[in-house]
Amino acid sequence: MSNEFTYKMRVFSEDTDSFGLVHHANFIKFMERARTEWVIASGFQFSDLLKQGIGFVVKNLQIDYRKPARVYEELLVKTRVAETGKTSQLFEHIICSASSQDHIYCQGNVLVVCVDENIKPRSFPEEWLKVIS
Amino acid sequence: MSNEFTYKMRVFSEDTDSFGLVHHANFIKFMERARTEWVIASGFQFSDLLKQGIGFVVKNLQIDYRKPARVYEELLVKTRVAETGKTSQLFEHIICSASSQDHIYCQGNVLVVCVDENIKPRSFPEEWLKVIS
Amino acid sequence: MSNEFTYKMRVFSEDTDSFGLVHHANFIKFMERARTEWVIASGFQFSDLLKQGIGFVVKNLQIDYRKPARVYEELLVKTRVAETGKTSQLFEHIICSASSQDHIYCQGNVLVVCVDENIKPRSFPEEWLKVIS
Amino acid sequence: MSNEFTYKMRVFSEDTDSFGLVHHANFIKFMERARTEWVIASGFQFSDLLKQGIGFVVKNLQIDYRKPARVYEELLVKTRVAETGKTSQLFEHIICSASSQDHIYCQGNVLVVCVDENIKPRSFPEEWLKVIS
Repeated sequence: MSNEFTYKMRVFSEDTDSFGLVHHANFIKFMERARTEWVIASGFQFSDLLKQGIGFVVKNLQIDYRKPARVYEELLVKTRVAETGKTSQLFEHIICSASSQDHIYCQGNVLVVCVDENIKPRSFPEEWLKVIS
Repeated sequence: MSNEFTYKMRVFSEDTDSFGLVHHANFIKFMERARTEWVIASGFQFSDLLKQGIGFVVKNLQIDYRKPARVYEELLVKTRVAETGKTSQLFEHIICSASSQDHIYCQGNVLVVCVDENIKPRSFPEEWLKVIS
Repeated sequence: MSNEFTYKMRVFSEDTDSFGLVHHANFIKFMERARTEWVIASGFQFSDLLKQGIGFVVKNLQIDYRKPARVYEELLVKTRVAETGKTSQLFEHIICSASSQDHIYCQGNVLVVCVDENIKPRSFPEEWLKVIS
Repeated sequence: MSNEFTYKMRVFSEDTDSFGLVHHANFIKFMERARTEWVIASGFQFSDLLKQGIGFVVKNLQIDYRKPARVYEELLVKTRVAETGKTSQLFEHIICSASSQDHIYCQGNVLVVCVDENIKPRSFPEEWLKVIS
C-alpha cells in the first residue's frame, strides 16, 4: 500500500528571481518542505529521531521543469514513496497549481538516505516504514 | 573542442542548515553562479542578450551528492558543456574542494534551454556557441 | 482603528544555518510573508495592483533579536501598522512561538513605501488604507 | 585606530526577486559574508574559535535602503567596527556599486555579540580585538 501526502504553500517574492519566475533551485526546497510536513503529520518528532541518532540526507535528485511558476501563486506539492530500499527511499514529487492540478510546474525524484550520527547509511526505524511508504 | 570554466567560491553560514552541512538545494545555486560567471567572463552582457530577447531557463537537472560540504569551506565549481542541441545545452558540473580536487561534493547535469521573450525555445546566438561549448 | 494580522508558519531546514538556529536574515523574509498574506487576505490581487502601476519597496528596517528559533518550530508573525504616512507605512512585526506567545524570537519595524512603475513614492490606494492600517 | 574591510561580490539571479531587484533581506546576508571574509582574512579559523567555545550572534540590525540593485551587478560591501563593547561589536556596512562607489545601495548597522556554547554573551578573544576593531 502506498501513501501520499499533499502540502499546500504560497510562492512569496523571496522564492522568485528577476526573470519573474520561481527560481529552479527553490522547487527543491519546496519538495523538502512537503517531506518534512509529512513526517510531522505522521506523528514523528525530529527531536526524538535525532536523540536516536537518526538523520536523513539527500543522495540524488532528478527534476523536470515543465511550466514556470510565478509570485503569489498557491502550489500543491504532492509526495509519495516510489521505492523503499534497505537504507533509502525514493520520493516522487509533483508540484502543481492549487487551483488547477493539471497545471504541473515540475516533477522530481529525490533519493533520501537514512543515516546515523556519522552520516553513514542505516535502516529506517520500523515505525517510519509503517506510515511513510 | 570543449571549453571548461572553473568558479571558486566560499560556503557561508547562509548556505548551510542546522545539520551543519550545505543544504542540498544550494549546490544548484552554486552551479548557476558558475554558468553566470562563465558567460560574463566570455564577454557577454546579459543586458545585451535581454535586449535581443534572449533568456535561459533550466529544463531538467540531475544531481548526485557524494560528500557533505561544511561552512567556510572553499569550493570549486567546474563547468563544461557536455552536449549542445538545437535550442539547449547540457552543462556538467563538478563541485569539489578548492584545496583537494579529488574531494568531490557533488556532480550535476543541468539542461539549459535558450528561450525568447515568451519563454519559447530558440536557437543560441552564434557568438555564444563559439565560446560556450 | 488599527488592524492586526497573524501569519502562522513552520521553520524548515532551509531557514536554519550550521549554528542550528534560524538565520537572522530569514526572519526578515518571514515578516514579508506575513505582510503578503495580509494583503491577499484583505482581498487584493497583486496582479491588479501591478496593472495600476502600484508596487511596494522596503525603505528601512530595524530588528531586535531576542531568542534563537530552531528547525521545525511553528512561529507566529504578528503584524500591525504602527504609522501611516503619505507614501509609506511602518509595519511592526513580532515573531513568537505558536505554542507559547510570550516566547518572542524577534521584533521588527519595517518601513514600506508605495511606489509607481519608476520606483518613485506615490500615495497608497484608498481601498488599501481602509483595510491595512 | 579603526580598520576597514571591503568585500567584492556579484549579484546572481538567486539574490533577486520578481520585481527585478535584489531582495531586501539578501543584503543582510551580503553583510555577513563581508564580516566572515574579514575574520578569515585576519587569520582566524572559525573551527579554532568553535573549539574554544566561541560563537557570534546578531542581536540587532538597522538597514537603510537607498537605491535598488540589479542582477549581475558587482557590489562592494565596506565594513568597519563603529563601536566595541564588552561582549559586542557594532559593525557598520555600506554596500555600493563596485564600478561607482558613490552609488550606495544600502547602509546597515549590525550589532554582533560574542557568545559561549550556551549562547550567553562573553568577551571577545584578545587577538580578535587586535585585528577586528
